Amino acid sequence: MLRVKILGTGKYLPSRKITHEEMDQRLGTRPGWALKTTDVRIRHFATKEETASFMGARAAEAAIAAAGLELSDIDCLVCTSGTKEQALPSTASFIQLALGDELQGVPAFDIDATCLSFLAGLDLMSHLVAAGRYRHVLLVASETASAGLNWEEKESAALFGDGAAAAVIGPSAEEDASRIVGAKLRTYSAGARLSEVRGGGTRLHPREHSAETEADFLFHMNGPAIFKMASKLLPGFVDELLAPSGTKMADFKAVIPHQGSAMSMRLMSKKLGIAKEQLIYITPNHGNTIAASIPMGLHEAIIQGKARRGDRLLLLGTAAGLSIGGMIVDY
Amino acid sequence: MLRVKILGTGKYLPSRKITHEEMDQRLGTRPGWALKTTDVRIRHFATKEETASFMGARAAEAAIAAAGLELSDIDCLVCTSGTKEQALPSTASFIQLALGDELQGVPAFDIDATCLSFLAGLDLMSHLVAAGRYRHVLLVASETASAGLNWEEKESAALFGDGAAAAVIGPSAEEDASRIVGAKLRTYSAGARLSEVRGGGTRLHPREHSAETEADFLFHMNGPAIFKMASKLLPGFVDELLAPSGTKMADFKAVIPHQGSAMSMRLMSKKLGIAKEQLIYITPNHGNTIAASIPMGLHEAIIQGKARRGDRLLLLGTAAGLSIGGMIVDY
Repeated sequence: MLRVKILGTGKYLPSRKITHEEMDQRLGTRPGWALKTTDVRIRHFATKEETASFMGARAAEAAIAAAGLELSDIDCLVCTSGTKEQALPSTASFIQLALGDELQGVPAFDIDATCLSFLAGLDLMSHLVAAGRYRHVLLVASETASAGLNWEEKESAALFGDGAAAAVIGPSAEEDASRIVGAKLRTYSAGARLSEVRGGGTRLHPREHSAETEADFLFHMNGPAIFKMASKLLPGFVDELLAPSGTKMADFKAVIPHQGSAMSMRLMSKKLGIAKEQLIYITPNHGNTIAASIPMGLHEAIIQGKARRGDRLLLLGTAAGLSIGGMIVDY
Repeated sequence: MLRVKILGTGKYLPSRKITHEEMDQRLGTRPGWALKTTDVRIRHFATKEETASFMGARAAEAAIAAAGLELSDIDCLVCTSGTKEQALPSTASFIQLALGDELQGVPAFDIDATCLSFLAGLDLMSHLVAAGRYRHVLLVASETASAGLNWEEKESAALFGDGAAAAVIGPSAEEDASRIVGAKLRTYSAGARLSEVRGGGTRLHPREHSAETEADFLFHMNGPAIFKMASKLLPGFVDELLAPSGTKMADFKAVIPHQGSAMSMRLMSKKLGIAKEQLIYITPNHGNTIAASIPMGLHEAIIQGKARRGDRLLLLGTAAGLSIGGMIVDY
């Protein structure tokens, strides 16, 4: 139990909307296929100007404003994305740069647990806030999935969207009910190759890109195998996450899952006993925005009035790695 | 002051040695130029089999053994590298995979602050150990600089080497003198483009690689500009880092700098009043191994008997970002 509070959240969606009709045209699938397969009506794709740092900075400004703070109140900036803007240095540096002069000198670095990066960052940084090492930490997840989609893997290409979400955390006062109640992260690398982009790092440098190796530099996902592995592990994981605080699934005002895919969320909800009115479901107008997905769901839950101060929330998801993560937050 | 102890360290160097004579041949420089310019006699370059995860796993095994622990004692694995093995998922997942079945389920993620990634990771994770969130955290920095060197930028190409270093941290007992005394990190993104690899991420995807864009996917460094910026910021930074514990530079048994370049370390030592016998200098037989540089220096200081239990140590460096970081450790 940490005396840490989510002070404000924000999001940014690229200006360019890709409808399910346009997605079917791109994929060469029959009209209605993309919608039926993914339940995504609209996802957003970033333009060249909407870099990860640009989108992240806009989401960050919204989160800082929602927290009633100024840029100068932030004393740590963490980018919690599953993709990087460029190979080196950290995307956090570029988000700082895009936020203007006031953040010069504020520590900036990246935390990467793929789709669970925000959750891992919130877990880690809440300890530093609780210990007084930092006061106001800005967490930013900004993703450009569209840059690396494999249009030959139609099922996965139709799932994703671009965008950014941010949150500011700070200490929670003695009389304040806001808390981080619990957190848990598990990684089973036996599934590390079930979703990946093999190239782009030091093992397969971009100079190896060619017509033959093209797919190595694009996102590959074995959805059924991930689903099989995750659904075997999730129930026990959730039991272990909930037990220490004696929380039952029915106690959560809102459950904010990583919007991996509509099908996986449906089956997960059934398996874990998450009621329809608890589930924050933003897939139809966002798609899967990688690590921005969970903070975007949190932001939507807050602005739609589905998560109010004092409510107990569950953040939950799976990620490439293969990782499973969850956090109990008294908002 | 955190009751956290560095329990063991380890390193791995690739089998292939590149002498300064061979470096001159590669660069087309006159014999002696690389040695005179960089003071690197030998650096190591990884073979195709020596992936970041392979090297990281070997360094990790050595660190775990030095700590007197088993793989099964580790409950969190953090990769603290400035480069990634592949774009997605985290390098930590692949290090876990390379370490065998016993680490399945242990949380694994990456922390990236370029050359200061290990220092940022040690700072962050020491708070989670102090809070009891994790007991034995394995930090691994594994770098393959050779994959992205720009042979046209001879001064920087001659500086780097590949390799991995790891450390295991855990709680320090009441009667134990081992502590994390203080830590500080600052990022000035006004200098974000002074050292970078512009491509490889979502902004400039590997599909854009061509003869014309080649340099965008290689490491670029403006050494003089970085040095100018860092030397202006460092004295004030070190004063702020040392003041809370009342530590003076002369109190450190060993100062372990990031081995950025021989010249920068010489000038930094002079400016900060670091005596020759305090400075851990491993550049001549390692080069600059990016984020592996600081834990490798720590490991060398320990095995050479220059850092003994109870000694106060200073870890210090600059990184792309531009970041400055320092930690005071009672080893």
